Amino acid sequence: MEGFGVHTSMWAMNWDREGAERAATGALKYAMDFIEIPLLRPHDVDTDHTRRLLEKSGLRAVCSLGLPEEVWPTNTVEGAVDYLKLALDKTKALGGEALSGVTYGGIGQRSGLPPTTTEYDALASTLGQVATYAKQIGLLFGIEPVNRYENHLINTAQQACDMIEKVGADNIFVHLDTYHMNIEEKGAGNGILDAREHLRYIHLSESDRGTPGEGTCDWDEIYATLAAIGFKGGLAMESFINMPPEIAYGLSVWRPVAESHDEVMSKGLPFLRNKAKQYRLI
Amino acid sequence: MEGFGVHTSMWAMNWDREGAERAATGALKYAMDFIEIPLLRPHDVDTDHTRRLLEKSGLRAVCSLGLPEEVWPTNTVEGAVDYLKLALDKTKALGGEALSGVTYGGIGQRSGLPPTTTEYDALASTLGQVATYAKQIGLLFGIEPVNRYENHLINTAQQACDMIEKVGADNIFVHLDTYHMNIEEKGAGNGILDAREHLRYIHLSESDRGTPGEGTCDWDEIYATLAAIGFKGGLAMESFINMPPEIAYGLSVWRPVAESHDEVMSKGLPFLRNKAKQYRLI
Amino acid sequence: MEGFGVHTSMWAMNWDREGAERAATGALKYAMDFIEIPLLRPHDVDTDHTRRLLEKSGLRAVCSLGLPEEVWPTNTVEGAVDYLKLALDKTKALGGEALSGVTYGGIGQRSGLPPTTTEYDALASTLGQVATYAKQIGLLFGIEPVNRYENHLINTAQQACDMIEKVGADNIFVHLDTYHMNIEEKGAGNGILDAREHLRYIHLSESDRGTPGEGTCDWDEIYATLAAIGFKGGLAMESFINMPPEIAYGLSVWRPVAESHDEVMSKGLPFLRNKAKQYRLI
Amino acid sequence: MEGFGVHTSMWAMNWDREGAERAATGALKYAMDFIEIPLLRPHDVDTDHTRRLLEKSGLRAVCSLGLPEEVWPTNTVEGAVDYLKLALDKTKALGGEALSGVTYGGIGQRSGLPPTTTEYDALASTLGQVATYAKQIGLLFGIEPVNRYENHLINTAQQACDMIEKVGADNIFVHLDTYHMNIEEKGAGNGILDAREHLRYIHLSESDRGTPGEGTCDWDEIYATLAAIGFKGGLAMESFINMPPEIAYGLSVWRPVAESHDEVMSKGLPFLRNKAKQYRLI
Repeated sequence: MEGFGVHTSMWAMNWDREGAERAATGALKYAMDFIEIPLLRPHDVDTDHTRRLLEKSGLRAVCSLGLPEEVWPTNTVEGAVDYLKLALDKTKALGGEALSGVTYGGIGQRSGLPPTTTEYDALASTLGQVATYAKQIGLLFGIEPVNRYENHLINTAQQACDMIEKVGADNIFVHLDTYHMNIEEKGAGNGILDAREHLRYIHLSESDRGTPGEGTCDWDEIYATLAAIGFKGGLAMESFINMPPEIAYGLSVWRPVAESHDEVMSKGLPFLRNKAKQYRLI
Repeated sequence: MEGFGVHTSMWAMNWDREGAERAATGALKYAMDFIEIPLLRPHDVDTDHTRRLLEKSGLRAVCSLGLPEEVWPTNTVEGAVDYLKLALDKTKALGGEALSGVTYGGIGQRSGLPPTTTEYDALASTLGQVATYAKQIGLLFGIEPVNRYENHLINTAQQACDMIEKVGADNIFVHLDTYHMNIEEKGAGNGILDAREHLRYIHLSESDRGTPGEGTCDWDEIYATLAAIGFKGGLAMESFINMPPEIAYGLSVWRPVAESHDEVMSKGLPFLRNKAKQYRLI
Repeated sequence: MEGFGVHTSMWAMNWDREGAERAATGALKYAMDFIEIPLLRPHDVDTDHTRRLLEKSGLRAVCSLGLPEEVWPTNTVEGAVDYLKLALDKTKALGGEALSGVTYGGIGQRSGLPPTTTEYDALASTLGQVATYAKQIGLLFGIEPVNRYENHLINTAQQACDMIEKVGADNIFVHLDTYHMNIEEKGAGNGILDAREHLRYIHLSESDRGTPGEGTCDWDEIYATLAAIGFKGGLAMESFINMPPEIAYGLSVWRPVAESHDEVMSKGLPFLRNKAKQYRLI
Repeated sequence: MEGFGVHTSMWAMNWDREGAERAATGALKYAMDFIEIPLLRPHDVDTDHTRRLLEKSGLRAVCSLGLPEEVWPTNTVEGAVDYLKLALDKTKALGGEALSGVTYGGIGQRSGLPPTTTEYDALASTLGQVATYAKQIGLLFGIEPVNRYENHLINTAQQACDMIEKVGADNIFVHLDTYHMNIEEKGAGNGILDAREHLRYIHLSESDRGTPGEGTCDWDEIYATLAAIGFKGGLAMESFINMPPEIAYGLSVWRPVAESHDEVMSKGLPFLRNKAKQYRLI
């Protein structure tokens, strides 16, 4: 987890063979260091196919997911642990370095009430067991705070660090996302500062999830703070132009937020890379 | 609708007599020009009491609401029209100048799919009838785009203008909110530019709904663009520190986003006023 | 004066035949609408050569200058008028549309004291006569506020408008520069707002005069305000990478402020164009 | 050198008894931790009077200066060393903790050419001798990069660090200024990052030297980066509303850049303090 990468939603929302090949080709064309692979249906992934693709292309990989409701830790610690172990196995099998994302619940999960101690206990129990397993098989394991509408449990960098503290595992990292921080943090810099020692991965996603550089994210503050804390983790561009129905409700993108895939790659990507170089992050 | 005002959520989430008095006293103390009154339960408002309070204090008032599910226009045009007419009657009776907010649906309404023509037709039919009635009784009527998570129908200034165009009424205005624009617009300036001729009211709300000046909103861009389009409408500070359960799910604020009421009034309010003066808006 | 252009300092600091050809070729390669030609030594310009170059390339042109000390209006109104008339004649002869820049004094002129009424009277007398002449020969005539270190007479958009008011001519326009505004204005938006009805031309120059997008200028605020006032004039990218000795003292750039010419053209230019499109200015 | 302080130009441009008393009273009223005292004429300072004032008030002090032309190191290393030693003696005698500012030359010094090795050698020789002396008497000694117009020798944080490297002394620190960085650095964050290990003091000065919060400085980026590098030095608010003639040419402020002293203290100071608290710097 280092260098500059991209979430493969730019090329494929379903990680089938065809999508995987399109994504690998695209990522190579744009000289990415790594790709982020969404494990929305971990059972179905052809891990051999992906591993060969990665070996051939020289790309590294990080996997990410959100949990389906039937295995939310707040509903079933055991179910969540089993599901996440499977996802870790798949990550390992396809040659990935880490599993991250909303590993503590669902994208769109909201009880309607502030989080409770019982809920946090369920998360800690789940994450502790899964972190132990991740360590056994040599993977890093991350948690990504998301905004108040996508989950009510972990919205800020500070809450993510508090959870890591509560679990006590040394291989859980914080995975931030500029889109979520734009809503939740008192300045994106403060989110990065709160997470600092635990921060290993960051989604570079614009405020409307469209073309980076065309929204309200303060990229100078973001990159300057990352540089200042000596950030060495992965920088992953993320944009969601069109949503598959199954995650549309959680992400709630109801219109194309960029004109085209090409606009994101030809305008947004150079913007993010130039700015990262300006602050000497890549 | 002009000058600098405040959403009364700062003092009262329920608009009963006690809340109304607390709000009027608070608004006067901070030299507000007007208050925004939430009509969450329009039937219950003691309009005589509020009218006397306004007359005595010299404060002007704007009312706002989101619709309960049983009267969403996409469910029932007739039910929505009746409810909004009642809300207009109450607004008139208590001495308000306009009714605005999510007048086209619910706070938290999401079908899980992009908006359809059928849905937009229902909105247009509702808003057209209500606008006609508002005109008859001498009130302005507004629609407020909200972010993708709070409603799937009208998220951007452009969509609001398109709806006004579709309805064809000349007394519907656009009511923007910096919090929502921070998520939806390609620069807050672009939201203001899109709405320009229809814009009459704006919520000044920080990116986390906490203390203005401590988030990610670009207040220079916001105020400069407002000044440049010759904005003459109402500037209303809004902050939600604690949520009553009934709207918590829609707004999804799960933690105190400011240290205290006093912090918002003693830090956020001067920040917003100083910056508005800097751009000669007040 | 409309569309997107570039100051020819990117290719040539001396407007001789060779420099002119390099500049025209370069401007065409990057699809510019117009070029800005520095008339540092108006007597020496081969106007026929430039006119043919412009005709052949389809490029439009604006000329700009700062006055040498011997013809500063505060020293000699008559000398200044003669010099500026000559520059206007040259501008006309080479096919330019306007003459602008520090037409009211020197780049680096500072008395050490605040401006006096006597000084402003000399400026008004000079500019009035020159504006009349410009009108006779069908040219626009501009004045560019520069920062406090480059001149003590006109530093802000407001001061430029006050001078135009004082002169009373209807063909003098304000020419702003984002680099100077970054030092002098209370938000670049305010500079644009102050100049609004007189504004016809703007230099898009980064805060260190290096690669646009890599400095401290708030491009969102700048473009949003330009869009909001309905700006229709010329947008001219300007960057000074290396200085010829004769204007080095005035501009005071002592080090290369961008890595290379190519960096400005391949990173800065797309940044400025993309952002201008985002705000629908081009 | 820690905590939040203020340049005494807010109350006194001449450090005579009356000015000193006005400054100490003002600084206490606004609960400052320290004051910055300009040693424009070090010979004339009544050090006993100032020391008693500081002891009585509990304020700490930092002294600052720019060198008069007759003792610029590029003219005379010996003269510069003698002058700076005297200034250090005065700083010690009045109870100050450090001497800083343009200790390597004049405010307004420009040769008209890029800096030469000969010039830098003269600076290094001077600063080396002075740093040794400062150490002997137990003081810290700083150098402040200023913008291209105020000096041609050290404009950026990187150049200041290079000079410290060249000198090799361990008690020279870098003293940054947000006003100068706004012109010279590729993002204020980059200036802070370049200086990081040497940074002990920073002037919080707005882009026009007027009311902090009303200019173009990106305070979120500045404070976030300071927090991220673990900055523990002094934060000193600086504003120049009116200039005494003797330094007017160097600083080149030709108009009041804030409405009044009171505006800076009642709007600018709370803005800077609130934002510093937001990023947990004070």
